[in-house]
Amino acid sequence: MPALREVGEVEAIRLITRGAAARDDVVVGPGDDAAVLRCGPGEDLVATTDAMVEGRHYLSSWLEPRGRGARLAALNLSDIAAMAARPRWALLSVGVRPEHDIDALLEFQAGLAAALAADGAVIAGGNLVAVRGDEWWSLTLLGSVARERAWRRAGARPGDLLALTGLPGRAAAGFLLAHEHADIAREPMWRPLLEAWLHPRARTAFAQALAAAGVVSAAIDVSDGVAGDLAHLCAASHMGCDVEAWSLPEDSLIARAAGIIRRPVTPLRLGPSDDYELLLAVDPRGRAAAEQVARDTQTPLWFIGRFTPQPGQLALVEVHGGRTPLGRGFDHFTGAR
Amino acid sequence: MPALREVGEVEAIRLITRGAAARDDVVVGPGDDAAVLRCGPGEDLVATTDAMVEGRHYLSSWLEPRGRGARLAALNLSDIAAMAARPRWALLSVGVRPEHDIDALLEFQAGLAAALAADGAVIAGGNLVAVRGDEWWSLTLLGSVARERAWRRAGARPGDLLALTGLPGRAAAGFLLAHEHADIAREPMWRPLLEAWLHPRARTAFAQALAAAGVVSAAIDVSDGVAGDLAHLCAASHMGCDVEAWSLPEDSLIARAAGIIRRPVTPLRLGPSDDYELLLAVDPRGRAAAEQVARDTQTPLWFIGRFTPQPGQLALVEVHGGRTPLGRGFDHFTGAR
Repeated sequence: MPALREVGEVEAIRLITRGAAARDDVVVGPGDDAAVLRCGPGEDLVATTDAMVEGRHYLSSWLEPRGRGARLAALNLSDIAAMAARPRWALLSVGVRPEHDIDALLEFQAGLAAALAADGAVIAGGNLVAVRGDEWWSLTLLGSVARERAWRRAGARPGDLLALTGLPGRAAAGFLLAHEHADIAREPMWRPLLEAWLHPRARTAFAQALAAAGVVSAAIDVSDGVAGDLAHLCAASHMGCDVEAWSLPEDSLIARAAGIIRRPVTPLRLGPSDDYELLLAVDPRGRAAAEQVARDTQTPLWFIGRFTPQPGQLALVEVHGGRTPLGRGFDHFTGAR
Repeated sequence: MPALREVGEVEAIRLITRGAAARDDVVVGPGDDAAVLRCGPGEDLVATTDAMVEGRHYLSSWLEPRGRGARLAALNLSDIAAMAARPRWALLSVGVRPEHDIDALLEFQAGLAAALAADGAVIAGGNLVAVRGDEWWSLTLLGSVARERAWRRAGARPGDLLALTGLPGRAAAGFLLAHEHADIAREPMWRPLLEAWLHPRARTAFAQALAAAGVVSAAIDVSDGVAGDLAHLCAASHMGCDVEAWSLPEDSLIARAAGIIRRPVTPLRLGPSDDYELLLAVDPRGRAAAEQVARDTQTPLWFIGRFTPQPGQLALVEVHGGRTPLGRGFDHFTGAR
């Protein structure tokens, strides 16, 4: 298990970009000054970048290197899914300490490459620099989409249905359990919450299948929490939205966790949580089609509200008519978590 | 001058990605889950990523925020130039401390955006995270190139001429002067060396004009130093190369600096130095065409050697016939500078 300083930077970059499968759309892979990549005719390029910082976005004690790589892939894949695009090529930029163990770096790379490959993408290039303090991992992910077919945050219309995949808030619940009750968090019953936090999976296959149905008018992925990301989508679409409390999916596990971490259940579910689920505005006439796609791709999908023509007015509506405003979510700098 | 923590992460990301000019090739710019970008028909995508770390790739006392942004652009633009590609779109990923001054961040962004714009590229997306230790700045730069026309490191043939732009070693000389003789380094006479280190410019226009001439068989940019990068090019091309000592350009300034920093002149010029110049393998029949392009774009260009069919045999050849092997360059991890 040699350290990075023993193999040198050129070799380390070769290691983190290895194994890019020979593909027709990678004309020049890692090892040259830049990668050369080929889009198909009529395709637009979709590009996103997201990063993880040691001690802030992951804790070494909770996430082994392979899982960190998979998680970095998921953060970026989720953005590509939210555009209804097909993941294609990734560029990895990392800052690691010279004493970083090569085997751990290779584990990270293997986890990243495997998670990318599962959704159809390869590592096409990379860079590696030495740092003294916290390590960081930044990925740029490129995808492709048929022209004019990308989902955007803008586009929701009054009367569109608000759809949600998965069980939001689980990532936050897992995070809080691990940070505040580490011993309890390791009990098997909480594993689904820890998994949601540690090993998110982007909704890539679902998004691509649903895009083909042509029923989505706007989309965003949930990285700040349902309330926060819904606010982003509504701001871009100049819409409001009523979230129906009675339409939220049952989640008894999060309800039980809420008691342990002493948080009220609804804010835990709708507040800051990086679940990497999707929030969608769906044409009401397309509801059945969306539900069919969800079944076909084994994706939990819930219709939890409706867009309104009042810009910026987001509320949680109770069955008896009570309304609670939904504010914005988590912010890393102001530390409002 | 508020600090980042006062404006929050969403606003900070908006600030670092602002000012992306409306362009036909940016279908969706910053502010959505991902950018949507449009290549032309018959074009391949070219992608690279490079990063700068505080205290290692720049010193705050020597490079103000605007210059740091311009330098980050240059590192990446140089890779795109080395592929003969046209710079198009950039994605910025940064890790900054919560107390980072917003005005300084905006200065960095302005320097980056201006340097990109000078070569035809815009910021298409970005991400920003909080860090506790050294700050880092990672850019992914995308360009385009006509299919099958990208320069590569592989492709040099026996008898091809080795061409070099600019005056290599100046970046290293400036770096060493600044680090070892800070007072002397601030004297105006050394300014060209300091400029080479602090404010490199990629050879974008030259590369694109030269690509059209069709006389280049292989290329690499000089980020590790002439000897190191020539070794990379030769390895990829399975060639050797004789560098003619008598053909190296005159550089009296670096010769004078060598006395102060107590380094022998030739290793200073050919050794580790991130000059962001270009090393090219040129078909001998294309020499006049290359020289014409150099004049047209006001680019200093020197023919300093010749490729040989002996793989990996790199030597500095003296006029009397003496041969000195040229080794590899700088490595950030093994610290062989």
